[in-house]
Amino acid sequence: MKTLQQTGEHAALAALTAGLKAVGDDCAVLPLDAQYDLLLTSDPLIEGVHFEPGTPPGNIGHKAVARVLSDIAAMGGDPQYLLINLVARPEQSVEVLEQIYKGVRDLLNRFGVELAGGDLAQGPALELHVFGTGRVPKGKALLRSGAHAGDLLYVTGPLGGSLVSGRHLTFTPRLAEGKWLRQSGLVRAMMDISDGLATDLRHMLKASGTGADLASDALPKNGTVEQALYDGEDFELLFAVRAADADEFEFRCMEHPDFRFSRIGTLTGRPMEILLDGTPLTGKAFEHFKPVDS
Amino acid sequence: MKTLQQTGEHAALAALTAGLKAVGDDCAVLPLDAQYDLLLTSDPLIEGVHFEPGTPPGNIGHKAVARVLSDIAAMGGDPQYLLINLVARPEQSVEVLEQIYKGVRDLLNRFGVELAGGDLAQGPALELHVFGTGRVPKGKALLRSGAHAGDLLYVTGPLGGSLVSGRHLTFTPRLAEGKWLRQSGLVRAMMDISDGLATDLRHMLKASGTGADLASDALPKNGTVEQALYDGEDFELLFAVRAADADEFEFRCMEHPDFRFSRIGTLTGRPMEILLDGTPLTGKAFEHFKPVDS
Repeated sequence: MKTLQQTGEHAALAALTAGLKAVGDDCAVLPLDAQYDLLLTSDPLIEGVHFEPGTPPGNIGHKAVARVLSDIAAMGGDPQYLLINLVARPEQSVEVLEQIYKGVRDLLNRFGVELAGGDLAQGPALELHVFGTGRVPKGKALLRSGAHAGDLLYVTGPLGGSLVSGRHLTFTPRLAEGKWLRQSGLVRAMMDISDGLATDLRHMLKASGTGADLASDALPKNGTVEQALYDGEDFELLFAVRAADADEFEFRCMEHPDFRFSRIGTLTGRPMEILLDGTPLTGKAFEHFKPVDS
Repeated sequence: MKTLQQTGEHAALAALTAGLKAVGDDCAVLPLDAQYDLLLTSDPLIEGVHFEPGTPPGNIGHKAVARVLSDIAAMGGDPQYLLINLVARPEQSVEVLEQIYKGVRDLLNRFGVELAGGDLAQGPALELHVFGTGRVPKGKALLRSGAHAGDLLYVTGPLGGSLVSGRHLTFTPRLAEGKWLRQSGLVRAMMDISDGLATDLRHMLKASGTGADLASDALPKNGTVEQALYDGEDFELLFAVRAADADEFEFRCMEHPDFRFSRIGTLTGRPMEILLDGTPLTGKAFEHFKPVDS
């Protein structure tokens, strides 16, 4: 009888959700009506796991919501509604909860998203479980599986150092970028980077049957190459553009000097192989439950 | 600086969600398209709070999902999609999680609802946070606020003893009843009974500015009158029918011998007053965080 720690988060979740149609991207994409698809996503934020005790309450609320909005951005979607299940100890100060909710509202107001409700229950730790809905024109959601060998890979901003700098608590979800990228018609696959480029890129490679060839010089970094590859919690978008469209794409990007996209490599036809400056990248990646060295 | 225990769950949640349009019913009701409104709801199920350690895993999955489906039933809606955030300790057996998910799938299959995804994270206790979407024809969701003085009050089945009997782990959400009641066109207000009739009825009275006059003989019971009023976890529906429509309503109910509706009293014009056999009912109700005697 295996434990979660032995199995690892990704393998366990894959086993539990095997056979489900909508699972595998940052959001589930489901039929809504003649014009739109519905996007659904949920993210937990748990004290001691996703934030440390003593984190400013407003930042806790911000991060909980920003993670969900990042998932919707990763599909090229527009967020619509949010629900929050809040778990807290009986001795939890209500004033702190109000500050958490202020962080929630401030971010939602910036993007015109409605907080539609939720629940409050007692439990052994402070937790926010945020559920988000969004929509995207029918058939236009950007999936991980849309990538092809030969495509160029880009990210929306610098990677690494997010936990050390505290940026993971205050980052801006790339909704504007995600929607523009989808509307450009030139992006074929997209996802957000939450567990580190090396880990999340593998999900895109797996979904699309490709490999990747990265150039360390081209990686936009906060810190070292290693940090950019493995730190995680960046919440930048990773996306693929057909090589033949790259010139047009980069030309159109110039209309948006506020976007800071970087081309970081190309996709190859060798499934699941990641090269960095021509050398295969090995193991190491963040995963809940799974010891780092296993 | 007040704690949650001092404030109580309902007051704290009301403060946190003050000013939100969609809050207050079993589901948030939001514009979807020209034909339908969108229903959104979320419910936590936490070890040691909503179920005890040692509960059969399949029942844990069943209850987590049934609570959410009951919320959608309470609006007269059709459930569509579900997401689950699962929280577990690193030492959690994966086999038990698979049994929990079997309980989830079995119930969803009975009602043709799609599990659309979710997340898995480590935390200090076993928890399921279930997020559900549904839909209802535009403007037709049955709200608590639709009740009026003079209306007759009904419930869909017997109340009380749910925790003692274990029924809270295996109950059937009243989706068939809820939809039929909405389609009858004769029901003006509805909600589900999760915290006990005495507590939940107060929410309907508050939303509609009414009072209630209950007859103890008329209460369908598992156990005593006290149990029927206060036990909670019944997940039957409570609904109001205009007195002038009651004969037609009860006539049409006869087409459905499988439905076991009971008329339990009438609504009055005295806001928030609950009479039982002519005597005012006082305090006592289940609430998370709040000590029972306060």
